[in-house]
Amino acid sequence: MLSDYRLTKADKRGLSRFDPNDTGGFASKKEIQDEFEQMERKLRNLQDKLFASKTNGVLVLFQGMDCSGKDGVIKKVLSNLNPQGFRAESFKKPTVEESAHDFLWRTHKVVPAKGYITAFNRSYYEDVLITRVHGLIQDEEAAARMKHIRHFEKLLTDNGVLLIKIFLHISPEFQLEKIRERLSNPEKLWKFDPSDLNERHYWDSYIDAYEDVFRNTSTPHAPWHIVPANERWFRNYLVLRIILSSLEKLDLSYPEPDIETRKLLEQLQANDLL
Amino acid sequence: MLSDYRLTKADKRGLSRFDPNDTGGFASKKEIQDEFEQMERKLRNLQDKLFASKTNGVLVLFQGMDCSGKDGVIKKVLSNLNPQGFRAESFKKPTVEESAHDFLWRTHKVVPAKGYITAFNRSYYEDVLITRVHGLIQDEEAAARMKHIRHFEKLLTDNGVLLIKIFLHISPEFQLEKIRERLSNPEKLWKFDPSDLNERHYWDSYIDAYEDVFRNTSTPHAPWHIVPANERWFRNYLVLRIILSSLEKLDLSYPEPDIETRKLLEQLQANDLL
Repeated sequence: MLSDYRLTKADKRGLSRFDPNDTGGFASKKEIQDEFEQMERKLRNLQDKLFASKTNGVLVLFQGMDCSGKDGVIKKVLSNLNPQGFRAESFKKPTVEESAHDFLWRTHKVVPAKGYITAFNRSYYEDVLITRVHGLIQDEEAAARMKHIRHFEKLLTDNGVLLIKIFLHISPEFQLEKIRERLSNPEKLWKFDPSDLNERHYWDSYIDAYEDVFRNTSTPHAPWHIVPANERWFRNYLVLRIILSSLEKLDLSYPEPDIETRKLLEQLQANDLL
Repeated sequence: MLSDYRLTKADKRGLSRFDPNDTGGFASKKEIQDEFEQMERKLRNLQDKLFASKTNGVLVLFQGMDCSGKDGVIKKVLSNLNPQGFRAESFKKPTVEESAHDFLWRTHKVVPAKGYITAFNRSYYEDVLITRVHGLIQDEEAAARMKHIRHFEKLLTDNGVLLIKIFLHISPEFQLEKIRERLSNPEKLWKFDPSDLNERHYWDSYIDAYEDVFRNTSTPHAPWHIVPANERWFRNYLVLRIILSSLEKLDLSYPEPDIETRKLLEQLQANDLL
């Protein structure tokens, strides 16, 4: 089932084959609730092993249109992790110092160390999306940047980083509904940015830019996953399944004690102190 | 009740008046369970307002002996927060670069920005504790450092950081029990460090160093809280209460919309679009 939501480079159909309303054959949240909670426990357990063994880092990267649920999915799916081995990074408008460096500089500083899980709320992909849509960079520059991204991602994955790239796929109608929700709720109004309304005019250009990103950066070691995100419960379920199944492939286990600890254990056991 | 666990500078009795087994008059976890869950919801709600309004930063600093539950309390009390506005920082043996700077340098880089909550698992207080116990610094140097700490904390609190300092108070017997637990459980063995056993010989010196810290750095704007931590459920309950009651004093609220958003709202309402 998961492979249905993976976008390979060979797949030329692009986003149109994915339905933002898709719920994977499930009728409601109730049907997946038990499995969801079971998966949450499994993920916490794997995080503990990851933290103990320090064999790999895990980077979960979220992209998607405004209101696609990047904040929500991090809050609902990943907030159960032990915060000591997990952090969320978001990328705002670059600072003066960041802009004076190459576009991957500020990212590289915050990739996960071995043992840690990091979620990116937006990423270096913005540097070939929003900039391209608004004509700040041309196609050649975008192509060059995507090549740099491929090389950068290879550097990470060659060095033990598990890289999980997720696009949250919503429809323009869903986005409008969410904007209305923000505007009508005093507790959500602060999330509203008037420029979001303007960006809606560029919807098709964004889709084109995203499809070019998928074609150019969906590699075997760092494939893109397309997650239908109009139904929040299915979005959360699928994201959790993708992350869990990727982590399970790492075959994590608690490390063996070192010689000093083993000797001590033997002494204690021999003297009935344990 | 909370003031019972606050250590003021004027209080000369030190740690001896606190019982690590104290459970605040509660007989069991069951008695506080409902209130605990209610407080968790309140804390999440306040975090959302803090993140939205960006009026203050919040720094929760945990100190305590090995096995006092610093990791555990962050996991159990704070892992429900939205990870996008919360992070945990731990301080290991300083790197070469860190050692080449003053002892507050590495801390200053990771204090919370406005809108954010940060938990410190250990802190700059180690620089007047472990170093002092092992004779790496003398009393005059310790006194000078504590003065720097007071100034540093004043800088933070003057600039809108709510600083909550918590000492997790356990007994040496409880620590031994926890060490045994780590040694007997293959899933916890990786947390065991043979040097922890050696540190037990310095228990009284640590208590002396801590009491000197409390006398010198418990200020009205940044008081120390002593949390009895032999019973994990009471430890979690009291820590949550302390954090919640401190945050409640900030009187947080969602920000008012800016002029542009207000105008847009009026237009939409006038045209029945909302």
